[in-house]
Amino acid sequence: MRALSLWRAALLAALALPALAAADEGMWTFDSPPLKLLQEKYGFTPAREWLDRVRLASVRFNDGGSGSFVSPDGLMITNHHVGLGCIQNISTEQHDYVSEGFLAPSRDKEPACPGYEVNLLMAMEDVTPRVLGAVRAAMSDKEAGDARKAATARIEKECADRTGQRCNVITLYQGAEYQLYTYKKYTDVRLVFAPEQQTAFFGGDPDNFTFPRHDVDICIVRAYENGQPARPPAWLPWTRKGAEDNDLVFVSGNPGSTSRLETMAQLESERDVIQPTALKSLKRRVAVLKAYAARSPENERRARATTFYYENSIKARTGQLQALQDVQAMAAKAAAEKDLRARYGAERGLAGGADPWDTIAAAQKKLDARFAEYRLVELGLARLSNLPGIAGNIVRYVAEKQKPNDVRLEEFRESNLASLENDLYSTAPIYDDLDEVMLADRLKETQEALGADNPVVKAVLAGRTAEQVAHEAVAGTRLKDVAVRKALVAGGRAAVAASTDPMIVLARRIDPLAREVRRFYEEEVDAVQKRAGERIAQVRWKAYGKALPPDATFTLRLAFGLVKGYPAEGTMVPARTTFHGLYDRSDSFRNQPPWNLVPRWAEHKKDLDLDTPLDFVSTADIIGGNSGSPVISRDGEFVGIIFDGNIESLALDYYYTEELARAVSVDARAILEALRKVYGAGAVADELTGR
Amino acid sequence: MRALSLWRAALLAALALPALAAADEGMWTFDSPPLKLLQEKYGFTPAREWLDRVRLASVRFNDGGSGSFVSPDGLMITNHHVGLGCIQNISTEQHDYVSEGFLAPSRDKEPACPGYEVNLLMAMEDVTPRVLGAVRAAMSDKEAGDARKAATARIEKECADRTGQRCNVITLYQGAEYQLYTYKKYTDVRLVFAPEQQTAFFGGDPDNFTFPRHDVDICIVRAYENGQPARPPAWLPWTRKGAEDNDLVFVSGNPGSTSRLETMAQLESERDVIQPTALKSLKRRVAVLKAYAARSPENERRARATTFYYENSIKARTGQLQALQDVQAMAAKAAAEKDLRARYGAERGLAGGADPWDTIAAAQKKLDARFAEYRLVELGLARLSNLPGIAGNIVRYVAEKQKPNDVRLEEFRESNLASLENDLYSTAPIYDDLDEVMLADRLKETQEALGADNPVVKAVLAGRTAEQVAHEAVAGTRLKDVAVRKALVAGGRAAVAASTDPMIVLARRIDPLAREVRRFYEEEVDAVQKRAGERIAQVRWKAYGKALPPDATFTLRLAFGLVKGYPAEGTMVPARTTFHGLYDRSDSFRNQPPWNLVPRWAEHKKDLDLDTPLDFVSTADIIGGNSGSPVISRDGEFVGIIFDGNIESLALDYYYTEELARAVSVDARAILEALRKVYGAGAVADELTGR
Repeated sequence: MRALSLWRAALLAALALPALAAADEGMWTFDSPPLKLLQEKYGFTPAREWLDRVRLASVRFNDGGSGSFVSPDGLMITNHHVGLGCIQNISTEQHDYVSEGFLAPSRDKEPACPGYEVNLLMAMEDVTPRVLGAVRAAMSDKEAGDARKAATARIEKECADRTGQRCNVITLYQGAEYQLYTYKKYTDVRLVFAPEQQTAFFGGDPDNFTFPRHDVDICIVRAYENGQPARPPAWLPWTRKGAEDNDLVFVSGNPGSTSRLETMAQLESERDVIQPTALKSLKRRVAVLKAYAARSPENERRARATTFYYENSIKARTGQLQALQDVQAMAAKAAAEKDLRARYGAERGLAGGADPWDTIAAAQKKLDARFAEYRLVELGLARLSNLPGIAGNIVRYVAEKQKPNDVRLEEFRESNLASLENDLYSTAPIYDDLDEVMLADRLKETQEALGADNPVVKAVLAGRTAEQVAHEAVAGTRLKDVAVRKALVAGGRAAVAASTDPMIVLARRIDPLAREVRRFYEEEVDAVQKRAGERIAQVRWKAYGKALPPDATFTLRLAFGLVKGYPAEGTMVPARTTFHGLYDRSDSFRNQPPWNLVPRWAEHKKDLDLDTPLDFVSTADIIGGNSGSPVISRDGEFVGIIFDGNIESLALDYYYTEELARAVSVDARAILEALRKVYGAGAVADELTGR
Repeated sequence: MRALSLWRAALLAALALPALAAADEGMWTFDSPPLKLLQEKYGFTPAREWLDRVRLASVRFNDGGSGSFVSPDGLMITNHHVGLGCIQNISTEQHDYVSEGFLAPSRDKEPACPGYEVNLLMAMEDVTPRVLGAVRAAMSDKEAGDARKAATARIEKECADRTGQRCNVITLYQGAEYQLYTYKKYTDVRLVFAPEQQTAFFGGDPDNFTFPRHDVDICIVRAYENGQPARPPAWLPWTRKGAEDNDLVFVSGNPGSTSRLETMAQLESERDVIQPTALKSLKRRVAVLKAYAARSPENERRARATTFYYENSIKARTGQLQALQDVQAMAAKAAAEKDLRARYGAERGLAGGADPWDTIAAAQKKLDARFAEYRLVELGLARLSNLPGIAGNIVRYVAEKQKPNDVRLEEFRESNLASLENDLYSTAPIYDDLDEVMLADRLKETQEALGADNPVVKAVLAGRTAEQVAHEAVAGTRLKDVAVRKALVAGGRAAVAASTDPMIVLARRIDPLAREVRRFYEEEVDAVQKRAGERIAQVRWKAYGKALPPDATFTLRLAFGLVKGYPAEGTMVPARTTFHGLYDRSDSFRNQPPWNLVPRWAEHKKDLDLDTPLDFVSTADIIGGNSGSPVISRDGEFVGIIFDGNIESLALDYYYTEELARAVSVDARAILEALRKVYGAGAVADELTGR
């Protein structure tokens, strides 16, 4: 413990000097990989072709996850928990493929995943001058924000019109750089193989965010184009030797978001207001789901994916909160900020105007005061999933569609419409009773948190109880019928305004009030902080340039690190587990859930090489959104797939640390062994190994 | 994590009320087992015969460990680290049985363990009236202490003369009760079986004090009487079914010492002075040993057992220190003390005189001021192991032997002499070079800590360097020859005073100064605190009686608890491991030390039933000294053997907690499986199972 503390002190001292990052730090963009760092530290310089091939084999799953092409015939591998929506959607009351697992009997019997969209980053172009050129110094914060938005929308539309592909302008380095990313889209995605959820998520919620782990958290799907297996521009060959201790590995995926460049005022608000508020809400959600699930096995099945989603969020946010409460690490962040503010002071000419840190702090104070409302109304009621969410989206969609592209709410810009419609017209099953329970609780929570006199509460409940409102809306709506949704969208504002569908009526009541708090957030908080952040970014940019990687933005990034164990609980955690460990853990818990083996794994134990590595950890810099990212060797081979980080890795949202934080992966060798020996999926294994 | 914290708060609230101990708490004496608690909590009341049989099958290894008879022919099982001295002593440069393991080829070829003594508790008798009757209220603290000592020595001698057995008066409940324990002694102990140390201590120092564990930490010896296998009064039958989750188990062994009844002033001194001072010293010791061991493989072998001993101590003390730094637990202890002080105040008549808590605190302050000196000189220089220790013991022995028994230093009382001589005349190997290095460093440490002007430093070094003094003493001494030791003792004070053996000369210089600081400790600290402690004990006795178990005193105790996992690192640690876990951990570390398998275990993997439970944990209340204690089922069968506690169990020195603290055992099933399948020790296995 003492050695650990010293290590830690040294580490934190190093953190105070962000430019000296010789750590395995960074979620780097593919246009600016850390070539110098890699060469100096590991004597390895990935060639341009290496980088292009890795990028073009890496995919983003639009509902939040990563994956990669692993065969020339469009086979993609991602995590079970990324493919879970698909597996659940193709399940029926007769066949619960989530618990049974799934293997397509042959290539022509691979079922479609409704609503899935996969993106492939084809090109990157620096559009910073165009975006920043639209902003003039004399503009107010709001005007500057609008100008940026308008420029961004123009660039995206122009690109989409020209290429027919998905185009997004990405804000990097907190506004110091803007890049236009062009994506090839795959919307015909079909399921090839999924293990039982119990195998993918062995150890369940208790083992989640921990290591040692024993999960085969994979899902294999295939992209189709024009009804035929897609021929991707690149794919990753399967390893023949795996990854061993201290091997350099790369992770290519789409980390969702990090907050490393945020100011202390923002981090403190995150620690004292945002995370605690969100946690309280999530715990309430899980309690409701568990009560619902307890009523029947079918209820349990219906609630499973959602419960899993919320429980994951709770553990993650708890870990983040703990990282924010780490006094030493926060002191190191504060020291780094102090250093940057000193540089800012020394080069005042750069920015001028109010001190940007003070500006951000003042805006954050405003947000703190209205955060509960923002979370409950705009992030909550106006954008729920399933029936209420469909209604909310329709109400906004018909209104936004009439506006010029560049002033629309972001999710309704032309570049996002195809994905939006894909989602809106999804045939994924909807469970009325679950939707009703969840909606009722959301309404109740809003009422309790904001008070009966709050305008939103008054407008929504109109004197009735939350249960009455939710029941009436769910029982009376016809939105389960996709044709009804399409008709409403086609009918535009008039059709939606005239609709008496109670879910639409409810969404109409919520919409103006939610828009108001969103306006507050976007104009009085986000725009102000973005503009002040740009001033800080200029100083940082001048001081460190691209030596400091940008925050994550759910776009493609390259991380790297070593396969490496770490100290915990007074001893060492090894870099990997083996199948022996899976059977030990199951045996040790006497096969009690969530450590029970499905019968297939008990039966085929005798066939497996139990010494095969199962899961492993590395120091690569990852965050939520990296789920399903391929782990790649120097040789450019697929050696594993990211499926989690340990609890300590949740600090990576705010600062990088390689002392204890680890990315957790399934070993490529375990995947082959399981496919061949446990699942009789030799054909899939053969396709992966190219035999 | 949140659930854990709540649990913890509830637990600590309960701790504040010591009388309500419905926890699995207590190292109970065999004359007062917690029958009511066991009946109420577990519906089990051990019969008198059950208790007698368990007691008469339980043994104490005099150099600090426990064990049990497990066959009618005198077979005893203990831990490898309890038998290590023997295994090392029978090793030669040709055969290092510590690394190779040992199996006696046949019963008539079981080699003797030099210096081993094993005690069996035959009878217990309450002698409180006799001991306390010797103390009169008018006596000073010193007079009272002397009177108690004299009474104790008289009782012990009388018993020894009458029975011919080892007799010790044991102080229980901090002086509220005195018991005369009569022990049968076995001094002819021979080695039957020991696995490789790597198998017994798989995972080495990193895994020590942790769980999950994968150790076969056993050593099987046989007691002999008159050259024949002993026929013990009782022995434990081997289990046929093992212990499973939530099974009630018992631990019968000799916990060394606990400090649960100490006052806050004592605990705070322990936290702020005693533990930090000891830790600093131990770390220095290990550094010296490692430097010595690095010089050659033979050095490494010679230093191994000692290094192991010190490293164990460091981890243990670090855990204890952490327990003392637990703010909530210490607050609970403070609350319990406040409650007891209030009771004391309410029944002032009971005690009278100065407030005993204040008296103890004042004495503790005195000790704090001289603790470094006490530790370095009396516990250090005057009582080292090997050559300096032999010299020190001889110098004191010849002086003490001339005194009446009841005024001697405790370790030279008649009842302890046989053990002392057993030790003093041991033929265990001595390594000059190691002794010299260790002595030199002790002298240097003393010089650095106490300063060059300290009388001890001046007397011992006499102007030379520590290295010179150590070299001269080790090079010139003839004490390696047991006959020389015997001659000096036979020659008495005159022979020792006339000796020019430089080690004896050194010991003669140290002795008077060490005796002075010992006198200070015994008279000004220990006697004062004991007497004040007796006053507190009276209040506690009146309030709680024997419902509160006494502190440990390296005498036989019965503990109990459930086989049970616990939460750690965000998930659950199962109650056991299996052989699968051993192979997983070795595989996972790529067979790197200290997680390497000896070849025999790699070779016989195919023969083992890998699902066999290996190690398991329970909530039984144990502490150092319990090593080797049998774990016993309700049926009175041997189901396992204690070999460690997890890090959290180190809190048990100061307070019981079943939240996280666990006793760690080898499973009886693993022992049989290993003996038969790995070691070809079927005859031993057959003897254990009575086949």
